[in-house]
Amino acid sequence: MPIRLDRRSADFASQFKAFLATKREASQDVESAARAIVNDVVARGDAALIEATRKFDRLEIDASGLRITADEVKAAVAACDTATLDALKLARDRIELFHRRQLPKDDRFTDALGVELGWRWSAVDAVGLYVPGGTAAYPSSVLMNAVPAIVAGVPRVVMVVPTPDGKLNPLVLAAADLAGITEIYRVGGAQAVAALAYGTATIAPVAKIVGPGNAYVAAAKRLVFGKVGIDMIAGPSEVVIIADRNGHPDWIAADMLAQAEHDANAQSILITDSAELADEVERAIASQLTTLPRAEIAQASWRDFGGLIVVENLDQATELANALAAEHLEIMTADPEALAAKIRNAGAIFLGAHTPEAIGDYVGGSNHVLPTARSARFSSGLGVLDFMKRTSMLKCGPEQLRALGPAAVALGEAEGLGAHARSVGLRLNLQ
Amino acid sequence: MPIRLDRRSADFASQFKAFLATKREASQDVESAARAIVNDVVARGDAALIEATRKFDRLEIDASGLRITADEVKAAVAACDTATLDALKLARDRIELFHRRQLPKDDRFTDALGVELGWRWSAVDAVGLYVPGGTAAYPSSVLMNAVPAIVAGVPRVVMVVPTPDGKLNPLVLAAADLAGITEIYRVGGAQAVAALAYGTATIAPVAKIVGPGNAYVAAAKRLVFGKVGIDMIAGPSEVVIIADRNGHPDWIAADMLAQAEHDANAQSILITDSAELADEVERAIASQLTTLPRAEIAQASWRDFGGLIVVENLDQATELANALAAEHLEIMTADPEALAAKIRNAGAIFLGAHTPEAIGDYVGGSNHVLPTARSARFSSGLGVLDFMKRTSMLKCGPEQLRALGPAAVALGEAEGLGAHARSVGLRLNLQ
Repeated sequence: MPIRLDRRSADFASQFKAFLATKREASQDVESAARAIVNDVVARGDAALIEATRKFDRLEIDASGLRITADEVKAAVAACDTATLDALKLARDRIELFHRRQLPKDDRFTDALGVELGWRWSAVDAVGLYVPGGTAAYPSSVLMNAVPAIVAGVPRVVMVVPTPDGKLNPLVLAAADLAGITEIYRVGGAQAVAALAYGTATIAPVAKIVGPGNAYVAAAKRLVFGKVGIDMIAGPSEVVIIADRNGHPDWIAADMLAQAEHDANAQSILITDSAELADEVERAIASQLTTLPRAEIAQASWRDFGGLIVVENLDQATELANALAAEHLEIMTADPEALAAKIRNAGAIFLGAHTPEAIGDYVGGSNHVLPTARSARFSSGLGVLDFMKRTSMLKCGPEQLRALGPAAVALGEAEGLGAHARSVGLRLNLQ
Repeated sequence: MPIRLDRRSADFASQFKAFLATKREASQDVESAARAIVNDVVARGDAALIEATRKFDRLEIDASGLRITADEVKAAVAACDTATLDALKLARDRIELFHRRQLPKDDRFTDALGVELGWRWSAVDAVGLYVPGGTAAYPSSVLMNAVPAIVAGVPRVVMVVPTPDGKLNPLVLAAADLAGITEIYRVGGAQAVAALAYGTATIAPVAKIVGPGNAYVAAAKRLVFGKVGIDMIAGPSEVVIIADRNGHPDWIAADMLAQAEHDANAQSILITDSAELADEVERAIASQLTTLPRAEIAQASWRDFGGLIVVENLDQATELANALAAEHLEIMTADPEALAAKIRNAGAIFLGAHTPEAIGDYVGGSNHVLPTARSARFSSGLGVLDFMKRTSMLKCGPEQLRALGPAAVALGEAEGLGAHARSVGLRLNLQ
């Protein structure tokens, strides 16, 4: 049964705290297995990659078969339904438009002393994009990860995707093609992550790896972190919906099930000031579940992690939403903007009844890779900045050094760092 | 002996590759010890914190003694040398000025369809700043970590600092006071990290933890990552200096030793097109080492990890610098700006002979917390953005949903996510 909490009940605080602390991640301990695979790829390169692909994907290839050719991509695109391709193009264009606005500006200024300061942003040299195979192969995720990298100006974006039993969703290749990715390898798992991080004879190494994957992929990403950069490790997805008594139960139920159908560990929570609406949504969910293709998964998620929270007023709703720090927050109230202004912690906010999260998942333009498991308290969704880095710049002439030098010498000496003090003092003829 | 490489030698490429791959991190395996401490603090709160403080810092306190009082801070400030305090104030003001320029802008726009999009930046609710005790207690680091958090608008910045045998560098408290931190606890190690992440009766939990620490602190930060955000795990520090034949050997030697004196694992590398300069710098280093307070540390760093690389021209120097991706890059050539324009990978660039890194360490204004161990290929120095997060915003009305909805339905169906499609379709009366 999904949990039902009432803000007026005497033990609400402790119940909500327990609900907040619910662990949803299935912690599979696969680190040692991932480590063995990574070490093997580091030691033996392509040979290890080919062997792991034979073992895990049941696919026989040699080094020359690792790369997916331009002809194969062309054939995949031709195999796709035109309406779906058009939808992907619309998504690509809108994601690009949104992310272009995230391109950061360099800064350079001269202060009152004449010191020149500033910073410069530059794209990461090479990025690897992991794309899962099989049922979790989502072309929309290819776009959400690749387009910001391309917009950032990353000169080399490499995609890896496993093809278990040789099978690959043609829409994944079509999305890569639409994003402008031309270097694609049919490898997956920890072995693909290792190849991207350390390089093999066939796959040149990258500087950063992004994209979702299973427990082995996540473990391998943690292991190679430091050697390369990685994005966040995504946890199970979640939505919080704040609605008042005018909320449409069927729409809300559909949105909650859209979250729940991702994964049995996904979480859907309604916060409302109307106990009646909570009842109606619960009934609508039960009803819609009967005709949902992925009913089993959605049902498990709703049963184990779903929540209906009734509050006395919408201010209480924003407080709880800030504590929940949801990946997705839908606001369906009379004045969603006023309520959104009080939200500090959320990956993305969907305003008003006509903005279901699914629009943002696909074609809104904003990124659907968002911080999960309450990490919106301290992190942001994927964006252009994740594919760039900032180099700070400092320039003094003799006069500026004379003005600032004595303070630097004083601090170097106070910290017991004599060579720091000397490096300034020598230039000032103090030493 | 420091390594000496010549770009013209036949085996330069393999020698440079080996040099690049040199491991400098001393990998102390302290994870299980850190895990036990973290678990104890989670289970027993203040009692565990007090017990660990007694054990590791040889300090007897009860819960009421955990917090450092305003009077203690005032007394510490009074105990500091005025010139050093003035230098710290100058540093604080300049760091603040620089970082204010990093405050990001929100964005909100309406596209051709009438869809409202954008994002909003907000400060992290609460940040914990770890400050090491003992000899590595650097007041400059307190400013470099605290000022960007305050500039970001973080409402609660908490500092923890161990006081082994009850001792504490008064300049650390003075720096905290100058930065505006009022909540300070005399705890350190993995226990302090655990208290910040999980909270105890005395210390309310934070959402993100930053700041340098020993191996136990680093291990604890990795363990609590996810529960809270953490900054990068800093490795040993490094400098690369590019100089032409007009470089001043004494100044370059002093800068290289300023890096080397931090840590036996630090690294100083000179890249020059002048073999004579390389010789002169090597001699100057040997000479300056004889009078350096921290000669033993600097000597070990220079001997084990130092490098002199002679190239044929400065273009080769930029290539190597991009591969080294140094935390600090000093450029002392006739036209440092032209050379800097070719640098993609560096934490910070110091332009010209009158900008020793020590200026940037203390009073330049830019941040001295920078990516180490080649991670400047994919990450940036500490800044205001590290204390903020971005929430994306999306708003459709009925018309916009009609325009975008069919594509979302198509993609939801193509990905086998029926509830996604339904959440849009219901609103369009398609289902």
